[in-house]
Amino acid sequence: VASAVRSVADVGEFGLIERVARLARRVGGGVALGIGDDAALLRLRAGELAAVSTDALVDGVHFRLDQETPRVAGARAAAAALSDLAAMGARPLGLTSALTTPGELPLETALGLHRGLVALAARHACPLVGGNVARSPTLSLTLTAVGAVGRDRVLRRAGARPGDRILVTGTLGGSALARASGRVRRVAEPRLAAGRALAGGRLATACIDVSDGLLADLGHLCEASGVGAELDATRVPRPRGFAAACRRLGADPDRLALAGGEDYELLFTAPARGPDAEALSQRLRTRVSEIGTVRERGLRVRGAAPQGALGWLHF
Amino acid sequence: VASAVRSVADVGEFGLIERVARLARRVGGGVALGIGDDAALLRLRAGELAAVSTDALVDGVHFRLDQETPRVAGARAAAAALSDLAAMGARPLGLTSALTTPGELPLETALGLHRGLVALAARHACPLVGGNVARSPTLSLTLTAVGAVGRDRVLRRAGARPGDRILVTGTLGGSALARASGRVRRVAEPRLAAGRALAGGRLATACIDVSDGLLADLGHLCEASGVGAELDATRVPRPRGFAAACRRLGADPDRLALAGGEDYELLFTAPARGPDAEALSQRLRTRVSEIGTVRERGLRVRGAAPQGALGWLHF
Repeated sequence: VASAVRSVADVGEFGLIERVARLARRVGGGVALGIGDDAALLRLRAGELAAVSTDALVDGVHFRLDQETPRVAGARAAAAALSDLAAMGARPLGLTSALTTPGELPLETALGLHRGLVALAARHACPLVGGNVARSPTLSLTLTAVGAVGRDRVLRRAGARPGDRILVTGTLGGSALARASGRVRRVAEPRLAAGRALAGGRLATACIDVSDGLLADLGHLCEASGVGAELDATRVPRPRGFAAACRRLGADPDRLALAGGEDYELLFTAPARGPDAEALSQRLRTRVSEIGTVRERGLRVRGAAPQGALGWLHF
Repeated sequence: VASAVRSVADVGEFGLIERVARLARRVGGGVALGIGDDAALLRLRAGELAAVSTDALVDGVHFRLDQETPRVAGARAAAAALSDLAAMGARPLGLTSALTTPGELPLETALGLHRGLVALAARHACPLVGGNVARSPTLSLTLTAVGAVGRDRVLRRAGARPGDRILVTGTLGGSALARASGRVRRVAEPRLAAGRALAGGRLATACIDVSDGLLADLGHLCEASGVGAELDATRVPRPRGFAAACRRLGADPDRLALAGGEDYELLFTAPARGPDAEALSQRLRTRVSEIGTVRERGLRVRGAAPQGALGWLHF
C-alpha cells in the first residue's frame, strides 16, 4: 500500500536540495554566491577574520520529534551554531546545513527542519548558503556557521584574570525547564548583537556562550584562561515564574539554572573596575547580571543547596 | 566481560575531541585561532572572498569499513570537501569535522578517520581547525571546507558558451575501478593547484569537479551555464592498464570512466581559441585532455557503446 505522505525518497536527493534551496531566502549583503555551485562565496570586510563553527544534532539524542516540531528542532540547531559566532563577537555571514536522513522520512519533516533553521537565522541576517543531503538510517542535522570579526575585536575563552567580575546576559534555566516539561515550543535566540557590542566596545576579557550549562561553560572559560572562579548561585538570573514552574514539575531550580544548558546567553568576564552590570545592560541593550568573581584557581559555588551542587558538580 | 578494545564511549566526547585536536597539525599560515574556542578564526587576504562547502559521508552508504581502512575513508571525505574548493579556484584555509558515532565504535576507528583526513588535507596546506563529536546509532563524517578566492578570480559552474572546448585534468575511472574491485587503498587527490592556476590565469569559462561522475557533473555545468554539450567518449582519459583491469573484473570501462565518480579531476570549459590541451597541461602542471565541445543544447555522447551509454545516461 502506497503511503499518502510524500517521503524524502519520493523526491530524491536533488529534489530535496531544490526544495531546501527555495526556502533559503537571501538575507544580508555578505553573500557573493549562494546555493547552487561547488561552494558558497561570502564577503568579508578589510581587517576581518572568518569565524567558523560546526555543530551537529542527532535525532533521539539532541532532539526528539515527539516532543518538538521539526521547525523547533531546526531553529535550535541554528541557535546553537550562531551562538558560537556570538561568543566570538562575530557577525554571521552564512550557514551551511548537512542533513543525513532515512529515505522514508516524511518530506515535510525535512523541510520543516530547514524552515525552522532558515527562519531563526534570518532574524539574525544570516542566510542559508549551502548544504548537503545524504541517506542514512539516522536523521541528523549538522550546521556550520561562518561569520566575520575584526581581527583586533575578537572575544575569546582565554583572557579572564583573577579579580575580574563574572557576568551573564539574560536569564538561565528556561530552555532546560521547557525540556523538562516535555514541550519545547520556543527557542532561545543567540546573542549576536550583544556579542558584537561586547567585542566592539572591548568590554570583556573573556567570553563563552552558555550551551552546555552555566557551570560547564564557566569551567571551559576558566580552563582556557588558566584561572578559577567563585559563583553566587543566588545571583544567577532566572526567568519570571521559574521557581514556581520548577516546583510544579518537581525539578531542582538550581540544577536547571546552573547546569541546564542551551540557554545561548553570553557568559563573560570584565575588569573589576569598569562599567557595572547596569551600564553594561545599556551598552548591550539586554539584561546583564553580575554573578561571581574570577579567582586564581578552583571553582566554588555559593548559595546553592549542597545536595544539588554536589550532585551534578562533577567536573 | 570488558572488551580489550577501547571504544569512543570509554573516553567520552571531550576525550575524543582532545585526541582529535592533538592530530590536528597546524599547517598553512591562514589560521589565526584553531581548535579549542567557540569558533576557529581564519585569515583572508585583501580582495578575497571566503568559499564554504559541506559534504557528508555516511557509513554503509558512502564508505564501508570492511572494504577500506578508516584512514582511507577519512582521506576520501577530505578529498571530496577540498575538491569543491578546487572547483572554485580557491586556496584552502581550514577544515572542520563533525563526527556522529555509536559509543561502541573502537576509538582507533574514530582516530583513524581523522588521521586520514588530516594527512590528506595537510598535503594541501589545509589544517583541521574545529569540529564536533555527537553520539548517534550511525557513524558519519561531515566535513566543511573553508577557502579563499580572489573576488575577480572565481571559477563557477556558470559561464560556458556554445563553441567552448570541454577539457578535463588527469584521468577518469580509477576511483570507480578501485571500488568495483572491493579494495580502495588510495584516494584521488583534489586538484587545488590546478584550480588556482585555472582561476589565476583566467583560463576557464566554467569549471566543476568530477565527484558524481563525468556525465552527471557535465550535466550540472551545462545546466548552470544554460548550454548543451557534445562529448567524445573515446577521448576521455583513463588510467594506464584500465581496459585490461575492467576486463578482468567484467566491468564496463565506459561506464566507470564516464559515470564512476569520485575522480576529483577538474572538468572545465575554455574558449575555442586559446591555449590548447598541451599548453594548458604546462600551465596546470598536470595532464589536460580535450574531450568535447559546448553546444547550444542537449547532451550527446559519441564513441561509447550504445547499450552502455543508454543504460546509464538517465538525465
